[in-house]
Amino acid sequence: MGSHKLILDMDTGIDDALALAYLATFNDAELLGAIGTYGNVATDMAVRNTAYVLELLELHDVPVMRGSQAPSWAAAFIPDAGCAQFHGTDGLGGFGPSADWHMPGSMSDSPKTDAYGHRQECRIADPPETDVHAIRSLISVGGYDVHDPHANPAVDSFSLSFASDQCETHDDSRNRTTATADVRYSPALPAGVQFIIDTVRRYGNDVTVVATGPLTDIDAALQAAPDIAGKLRLVMMGGTLTQEGNCWDLTAETNIIQDPEAANRVFHSGADITMVGLDVTHQCLLGGEATQRWRNAAALSEQSNGAIPVDSPAHSATSQHALSPRALRFLADIADFSIAANLKADARLFSAGMPLHDPLAAAVALDQTLVSCIDLPMKVETQTGDFHGTRGRTIGDPEGLIDPLAPRVHVALRVDAERFVSEFTARIGGILG
Amino acid sequence: MGSHKLILDMDTGIDDALALAYLATFNDAELLGAIGTYGNVATDMAVRNTAYVLELLELHDVPVMRGSQAPSWAAAFIPDAGCAQFHGTDGLGGFGPSADWHMPGSMSDSPKTDAYGHRQECRIADPPETDVHAIRSLISVGGYDVHDPHANPAVDSFSLSFASDQCETHDDSRNRTTATADVRYSPALPAGVQFIIDTVRRYGNDVTVVATGPLTDIDAALQAAPDIAGKLRLVMMGGTLTQEGNCWDLTAETNIIQDPEAANRVFHSGADITMVGLDVTHQCLLGGEATQRWRNAAALSEQSNGAIPVDSPAHSATSQHALSPRALRFLADIADFSIAANLKADARLFSAGMPLHDPLAAAVALDQTLVSCIDLPMKVETQTGDFHGTRGRTIGDPEGLIDPLAPRVHVALRVDAERFVSEFTARIGGILG
Repeated sequence: MGSHKLILDMDTGIDDALALAYLATFNDAELLGAIGTYGNVATDMAVRNTAYVLELLELHDVPVMRGSQAPSWAAAFIPDAGCAQFHGTDGLGGFGPSADWHMPGSMSDSPKTDAYGHRQECRIADPPETDVHAIRSLISVGGYDVHDPHANPAVDSFSLSFASDQCETHDDSRNRTTATADVRYSPALPAGVQFIIDTVRRYGNDVTVVATGPLTDIDAALQAAPDIAGKLRLVMMGGTLTQEGNCWDLTAETNIIQDPEAANRVFHSGADITMVGLDVTHQCLLGGEATQRWRNAAALSEQSNGAIPVDSPAHSATSQHALSPRALRFLADIADFSIAANLKADARLFSAGMPLHDPLAAAVALDQTLVSCIDLPMKVETQTGDFHGTRGRTIGDPEGLIDPLAPRVHVALRVDAERFVSEFTARIGGILG
Repeated sequence: MGSHKLILDMDTGIDDALALAYLATFNDAELLGAIGTYGNVATDMAVRNTAYVLELLELHDVPVMRGSQAPSWAAAFIPDAGCAQFHGTDGLGGFGPSADWHMPGSMSDSPKTDAYGHRQECRIADPPETDVHAIRSLISVGGYDVHDPHANPAVDSFSLSFASDQCETHDDSRNRTTATADVRYSPALPAGVQFIIDTVRRYGNDVTVVATGPLTDIDAALQAAPDIAGKLRLVMMGGTLTQEGNCWDLTAETNIIQDPEAANRVFHSGADITMVGLDVTHQCLLGGEATQRWRNAAALSEQSNGAIPVDSPAHSATSQHALSPRALRFLADIADFSIAANLKADARLFSAGMPLHDPLAAAVALDQTLVSCIDLPMKVETQTGDFHGTRGRTIGDPEGLIDPLAPRVHVALRVDAERFVSEFTARIGGILG
């Protein structure tokens, strides 16, 4: 069946990291590149976290690139308290790289990322005049306009970005302001966006883009290179059609609320899109018994001096790449953080564990049979109020009722949750199901 | 296959009338009773319109009963301008019964309905103290609290109900106020609600309740007789899951916004419910060529002196009841009114005609294969705002994600629209497909 070529676009994030780990267990998953973008954390931190997790997973050859720094409607982005609640202010539940960790020099985009990884782009003055009316505001706080009452910056990120009028980082040695990398302003595309364009042009739908954060990079790629629309195969975590959302209004989903305009354009691009939303991810819960299995597997592996125990089924598995004890403990640690955070947020809905949002999208990219989809022309509403709906809502596009040729999104409505959670737990633990 | 026993609960309305006509063409559809309830029009007018249409259809033996007069959350109801826009202030596009038309004496509930048919229940003082906190407000205007900016009464109904402080009708000879029939206040159930209870107790799921208006009557029946929940087979027109709504907020659907609390209770009752919502009804459009066919069929029938022409395929049809030329012209008239109103409201979405909301629900009651459903635990949100969603939204109930035994609603997501619209047009025109 050959290998699965993948590009990952991630706002890494705990469940993004778990998605990476799941993919790492497949010897036939060929990760062509990983792009860090804003969302759960700021872009620089996403890049840094992605590189860190790849190193833990011993995937040293995967290039890590920078994606967009802010939504298409804003010039700057600040992670919000909700993201910090579910992912920690470092995006990895406090288990992220220490300050002295350096990204490997082999990473293609490393010169653009400082060692601190916390730099915020916040030059908010003087956008080109022609764009002033195209944007809603200049600063997005977790997807909300900075003036919106729902804009609730995470304490660390807020103090970081706005410590002074000069928008400095909190590392005084690195004081500087930089032009935002937003695609609407910058003549140069972020390296990650250019990578999407180049790779899709080269491989067509033999490569799958897995997007587990906002769709800003995908939109930027499609806008800069409309020719890739017909070739792009995208599996995205985001949105919700038949379930309530997970934002304030119980309507929007967190990835989509970051950049509804971008998501709406992507939905209408004609790309081959599978939407893995809350409809299915809220059915796939990972509990503490799974992370305990990973810890046990780590201990067992260490007892046997790093070799895979002879009595482990993984020993004979040629298709599965075993993770290191260090990686297993890290994954258990971050998952336990998320399990606790979700339980605290909704003791009933998440009593069985954390929802495996991004891992499910990654799994669907490898095996579409995990979900059943409805093919439906979709839109993302961009305004709230009478005649508009609710900003960030993913819903059927009425255009599809009258135009049989309207682009259709494969919206996952059912999932074989038991099979997926079981395979996910077993593969990461090194035990073939 | 035997006959299909049906109870109809309707806020008659143009498309309700068309649903009645469609059912009338089936000799094997056994209409046990029709209930008129508030919604497109006030209850009395719905009763009167239902009786009038049944007479036109020569269905003289179907008893017509009164349903609830107002939503479960209100003591009084006023039809709104939106209903008048799509149905006319008489509910039948101006083609309703004239003032001197009298309901046939055989109708079981006729003593409770005055000849005028416009009486509004509007005693808003002194609800029982225990219920004061259970209701949101006392007057519903088309589903909106009278103080809501979206409450927009139809001119005629407003002048009718509130011509004076005494809540008189505009017929001075009939001045009176009456206690509201709302089930939360009245010890006596409306006759229609009692009929639902009695009939479901007798026939179980051998009878199908077709509800094409708000679900207040169904809720009242289930509340008064919880024992029927396990036996009740309900096909309802209302709600929307994958498409935008048709109320101000583009989220709620008009039948559901009338009484979200009732609909939510019905969804959770455990009854066997098929939801025929905008997901499918907006795909079934009836255009002017169909009504022209009906007019042609009427003319042809009259030329042959009322007998069905020998060359008509309907002549040999034992399973099809032919409609009279008078009925055909009436149906063409009201449909043309609705076709024009829908075109005016949305020239793009309804360029091909009026959506056959209620007729599709009636058809699904006879033939479930017209639609494909997803089985999903459903809720109706009853409040708008953070942590609540949007009042009137029909959406998956997260309870269903954690409770495998949560009641599931069959939500129609696909429809064989071509087959349905074609059969609908042909059957009413007396031409078997």
